[in-house]
Parts: sequence; structure tokens; C-alpha cells
Amino acid sequence: MNKTGTLISVEEALNIVLSASADFGVEEVGFKQSTGRILKEDIRADREMPPFDRVSMDGIALKTAVFNQGKRSFPVENIQAAGRDQLTLGHEENCIEAMTGAMLPKGTDAVIPYELISIKDGVAHLEVDHVDVYQNVHKKGLDQKKEDLLIKRNTLISAAETGVLATVGKAVVKVAKLPKVAIVSTGDELVDVNDTPAPFQIRKSNVHTLDSLLKRFMIEPDLFHIPDQKEQLRHKIASLLEEYDVVMFSGAVSKGKFDYLPEILSELGVEKHFHRVRQRPGKPFWFGKKQHTTIFAFPGNPVSTFVSCLKYFVPWLRKGLELDVSNKDFAILAEDFSFKPELTYFLQVKLLNEKGILMAVPDAGNGSGDLANLAQNDAFLELPSDRNEFKKGEAFPILHYRF
Amino acid sequence: MNKTGTLISVEEALNIVLSASADFGVEEVGFKQSTGRILKEDIRADREMPPFDRVSMDGIALKTAVFNQGKRSFPVENIQAAGRDQLTLGHEENCIEAMTGAMLPKGTDAVIPYELISIKDGVAHLEVDHVDVYQNVHKKGLDQKKEDLLIKRNTLISAAETGVLATVGKAVVKVAKLPKVAIVSTGDELVDVNDTPAPFQIRKSNVHTLDSLLKRFMIEPDLFHIPDQKEQLRHKIASLLEEYDVVMFSGAVSKGKFDYLPEILSELGVEKHFHRVRQRPGKPFWFGKKQHTTIFAFPGNPVSTFVSCLKYFVPWLRKGLELDVSNKDFAILAEDFSFKPELTYFLQVKLLNEKGILMAVPDAGNGSGDLANLAQNDAFLELPSDRNEFKKGEAFPILHYRF
Repeated sequence: MNKTGTLISVEEALNIVLSASADFGVEEVGFKQSTGRILKEDIRADREMPPFDRVSMDGIALKTAVFNQGKRSFPVENIQAAGRDQLTLGHEENCIEAMTGAMLPKGTDAVIPYELISIKDGVAHLEVDHVDVYQNVHKKGLDQKKEDLLIKRNTLISAAETGVLATVGKAVVKVAKLPKVAIVSTGDELVDVNDTPAPFQIRKSNVHTLDSLLKRFMIEPDLFHIPDQKEQLRHKIASLLEEYDVVMFSGAVSKGKFDYLPEILSELGVEKHFHRVRQRPGKPFWFGKKQHTTIFAFPGNPVSTFVSCLKYFVPWLRKGLELDVSNKDFAILAEDFSFKPELTYFLQVKLLNEKGILMAVPDAGNGSGDLANLAQNDAFLELPSDRNEFKKGEAFPILHYRF
Repeated sequence: MNKTGTLISVEEALNIVLSASADFGVEEVGFKQSTGRILKEDIRADREMPPFDRVSMDGIALKTAVFNQGKRSFPVENIQAAGRDQLTLGHEENCIEAMTGAMLPKGTDAVIPYELISIKDGVAHLEVDHVDVYQNVHKKGLDQKKEDLLIKRNTLISAAETGVLATVGKAVVKVAKLPKVAIVSTGDELVDVNDTPAPFQIRKSNVHTLDSLLKRFMIEPDLFHIPDQKEQLRHKIASLLEEYDVVMFSGAVSKGKFDYLPEILSELGVEKHFHRVRQRPGKPFWFGKKQHTTIFAFPGNPVSTFVSCLKYFVPWLRKGLELDVSNKDFAILAEDFSFKPELTYFLQVKLLNEKGILMAVPDAGNGSGDLANLAQNDAFLELPSDRNEFKKGEAFPILHYRF
């Protein structure tokens, strides 16, 4: 038996996590609250886009056939404003002033912008030699036909989608529900942010890092702290397993005397899918499931918790939302780097966009406890376990944490 | 005079917008509400990090000098738990079980993990040949000394920073205030999202696109609609100029008969800094200032409004927040593209990360009214005005709108 014992690889761990994905269901929200959510219906055009032959420059609308007969002066009959019913040209040798956004008046088929005409005593004089049919007219249905698919189900809603939703009148929209998540800290050395720690204590930070990260995915987790006492842990965890879709722990999964979590989870009927992964940081990661509840028990070190949440929870969430889970984000190593152990190494890097090429500058920090180093960097570069030397210029997947 | 007349270049326009930047001031928020905000104080270590010689593996703590004398069996005296005051080794030939996160017991200087020992009848037997001093001990102050700078003023707070804020006890944190923004639609052709438009009407969408975009920067804008009537416009805009730091318009800045905005803004004492920029889409962009209020009057076409907000408002906001305003985001054109007019062209593109190289695939759409095309893409590629031909493989700046 080699030193890594029963550890599984990062790839195996991720596959197991993904195969334990859940369906969160669908809910309806107001379209103004839908930014950042995942669309759960196809959005189709409710009518042609544009819905009418739409004037796209301010100017005069006329009939090109008359222009082509040599006429260059057109008496102005009327004004076609945006938001008004369509006018009809009374006499084909006249024109109608027409505003951007208005319907093209009946009997006309082109718009000449004000820049290219002069209007004197109610007559528009043209200073052009050529007019195209439908010039400066955004033709009805040019962009989209009625019932055309505008936004596909399973799209992440951004500002661009919000505008489309508004246009087609989707005031209420179907989006993926999000899992109900509990984030639990354990560890008697932890005190609250407001407290002054004794020399042997530290303030809770991992639960807040996780909370902040999950909020970027629109999840509003509930935070709990449970002391390192078996009975309290058992009792509280039992109720969390009932109430939540996800229970996320930070700490108490190593080999310590007070690392009760694996034992208690097992007693509570949680099926362990794996414990310990061939990676650094984050080796003691414990993952399991009980009925509808998924348990991510991350190691207690700050960097371990953070990288494991990015590497495992985020794809698990994406799978449940029916999004693509293959990581297509890569960056290029800016310096040679070596890492000896046969583990997948998550290297902290600063990202630089150099004229379209994403460079990753290593800044490893002092290991899994070095929280402050995270704040100096942008992402983890995932270096595979089957090699020790990583060369400048090679591309590797990244886990970006600034978005 | 060439056809572009008094238009200014995109570069000039951006410089003018940036020189009109404002200082939004500073406010205090709870650290849990600070994600996405800009930090307005330096964050320093309130004590050493780690604050004590911290056990980093579960196992036994012993004195290496005794190990080096050949001793391999150490009676276990006690257990040093995390969150408990520091124990002292009573007899140097003994050891103390020590848990991850605990203080290293006095009189010991290394930790041997459980994996490498066996404990029988209260005596730990070591299966190692060599022990380093401070092995598996995260030394006090190794990561940071007290008062070390952990996060610089003017950092965008992400999950990584949240953890650091928690660790150093910054329960309340100074962040940049955000401007109070009014988004105003005009245009009698516009109806609400809930309404069924008449054939000559369309639903309001630009204000919602802008609203969604600004929310990604933590701004909560107020939305207004004013009909195309001079008196109503004048009266309402006068009060918005008093109440808001930014008034953003969409529409009514072209040359149409009902494009009253430039005239009314001038009457209300707003100083025009420019009107019309050598760009497509978005040429009729009007920009001005009255005392503390900055006015962005974007053209009414959806794509024009969207790209102008990304290109001008976002850097203006960043400048006011004291962030870097130089655009370092580039992507590489995936296909040849040509664009004849002497205008800066904002080309819609899909972005692909191809092993660390950011490729921009053009998908121009049907012009500034083609809102649905935005939802098919990810960014605008900014193509300069001094050329007509843009070659596959060339890098250009991007304005990303999915983040």
C-alpha cells in the first residue's frame, strides 16, 4: 500500500459528487428579480421584432418610385410620431416627417434623414442622388419572427436577457429554485467576529467565506455553529439534515480526537460517498448523502474549505441547475512551477489578461491556513497529480473566485 | 467638413466622461453586506497569523531532541485540544496528543501525525526515522505579522476578502458609497412590461436592462417614465437633477421633432460636455453635468444604450470609486471582419476560452435595434475607427457583459 492509502483522485471525487446531484425544481419570480438566476423556460418572440416597419432615423418618409422619377422637393404633409397610429401618405408626391421608433407611414418606403435634407416653407428639399427602398427602415420581423426562440431554457439571466424578457412581456419568469443551504462551523477554538479571541482562539471565518461565495450564486445560506460535543452535534445535525438540501461543514473531518463528524454523520444514516481526496489543500474532504440532503464536509483550514467549495460544490450546483459542468476556464502558467507529492495541487495565482491571453502568475502562499494570501490572488490553477514539473506556457484549468 | 461633423471620438468622449467623475464618499456596512463593494480602509492583521504555534496535523506533540537521542516510544500524558489553553509537557520523555488548530504544547517542538504512529496502552510508538523541528506546526506569525497589510484600500471585496475581514474582527467595514441613480425612459411608443402593446407600440426594455446591469455593481437605481411632453419633461427632470447623483436617459437625444432632451437639459442649466460620438451603435450619446449631478443621455436603441452604459458609465463609476479605469480585458478576433465607416465599431461577440486564449467570435446582429442578439452573445469587441479591416488573430479590447 502506498502512502496515499484509500484516497481517491480529484477526478473520481468530482464524478461522485456530480452523480449525487439533485433537481431543485422550478419557481416563478418577477423578471426584475431574475438577474443571476437560471431560466427554466424557453423565451419566444410574442410578435415580430420589430413589430412593424420601424423608422430608424429622424427625417422624412417618401415613396422611392417618385424620387426615382427625378423629384427632389417634397411638400411635408404631416408628422409621424413614435407611439402614434400609422399615418397614410395622402399624395404620393408629398412626404411625411417621421421619427425614430415610429411606424413607417403607409404609402412610403424609405426615410431620408434630416442631415441630408433642408425644409423651407413646408417643403423638404433633398440633397441626395440615390435612395434605396427601405433605407433607414428597420423592417418588420427582420430581427425575429413571431415564436422565434430568443433565450433558451437553462440560460443564466444577465442584463441582456432582462431586456429581452421585458420586450416580450415576461413580467414573471420561470427560474430554477436554489437549494436551501446550511453552513456549519465546529471547533471550540472559534469565536465570533465581534469577539476578542483568547490567545488559543481564532475568529470564525470559513463560514463567512462560504456565505459570501454562495451569495454570488444567489443562494442565501443559514449559518450555524455547534460546539465540539458529540451529543450537541448529533442533535443539531439531525435536525439540519431534515430541514436543508445541503449541509456544508468546515472542520472536524480529520483524524483528531474531537473530529466527530464522520462518526456522527454515519450514525445519523448519512451514506458516506468518500472521505479524503488526493489533493492539496483539502485532502480530508468528506462527502455523503442522506435522502434529499447532500453533505459537503470540508476540511477546516481556510484555503482547503474555499478551494473544495469551488471545485466540488459549485459544479454540483451547476449540474443541479442543468448547466454545463465541464470547466472551460483555463489560464497559462507564467513561470515554471514544481510540486513533488502525487496529489492534485491547487496553486493560488494572480490572473493577467495580456492582449487576450490569460496568464496565471503563481503565488503559493504558506499553505492551507494562509487565508490572507487568497485576498492577494484571483484563482486556483489546477495542476494534475501525475507530474511534478509544470512549465511556463502550459495551460491548466482555473477556479476563478473573483466574478 | 467631413460627414462626421462635430462628432468627437470615442477616446475624447471617454476622457471627458472620466474628467467629470465624482467622489461618492464613504460609509460603514456590516462585513457580511460588504461583498461586491469597494473597501475604503486598509485592513491590517490585528495579531500574528497564526496567532500561536498552531498544530496543523492531528497526532502527538513531542520534543525532537529526545527523539534524536533514539527514543521511539513516548507515553501519552494528555490531550491538547483546539480552543483550549496551552498545556505544558510534564516530562520530556512523554508526549501530548495534539489536535489540528490547537496550540503546540509548551515543551514540545514537533507533531507526528496519527498515520505514522500507533498508540498502545497509553504509549505512542513511532514508525519514523526522522523528525524535523516544527514539523506539522504552523509557526506563529509565519503568514503575517501584527499590523501587516492584508487587504489594500480600494479592493473589490470578494469571498476571499470576507474571510480575512472576519479573521481580523472587522465586523463593520468602511466601503465606498454608491451614487444614487435615476433611470428615465421617454418615448410615447413605450408601454409597461405588463401591458399588451398596440401595433405601433413596444414595451419598455432599456430601463430594465440598465437596472439589471447597475445592480451587478451593487447600485439600486430608481426607474421613471416621462411622456414626450415638454412641460412634463422639464418639471420632472428638474426635480431628478436635485435628488440624484446620476440621471440616465434612454432616448430623445436624436434629431427628431420630439427629441426634447438636449433643449430641456440646457434650459435647466445642465452643461453639455458633448453630444454625438463617432461610434456605432450609440452615436447620439449626450453627456453633461449640473453641479453634483452627472447626466448620461443614451440613445434610445437597445444596443446603443447597453454598449454606451458599459463603455462610459461603468468607467465613470470605477473612477469615482478610485478603481483602475484602463480596460485590460482583451480578446482575440476569431474571424476576419470588416467595417467601412470611420467610426469606432462595437461588435457583438461570443467569447470562448481556448486553453487560456480568449477568442471573440463575431455575431454582429441586425444593428442597434436588435436586442435579442445581445442575449446570444457575451461581450462587445471595440474595433478602432482608423481602419476598415480587422484580421483573425488580432487582439482588441472587450466590454464583457456577463460577469
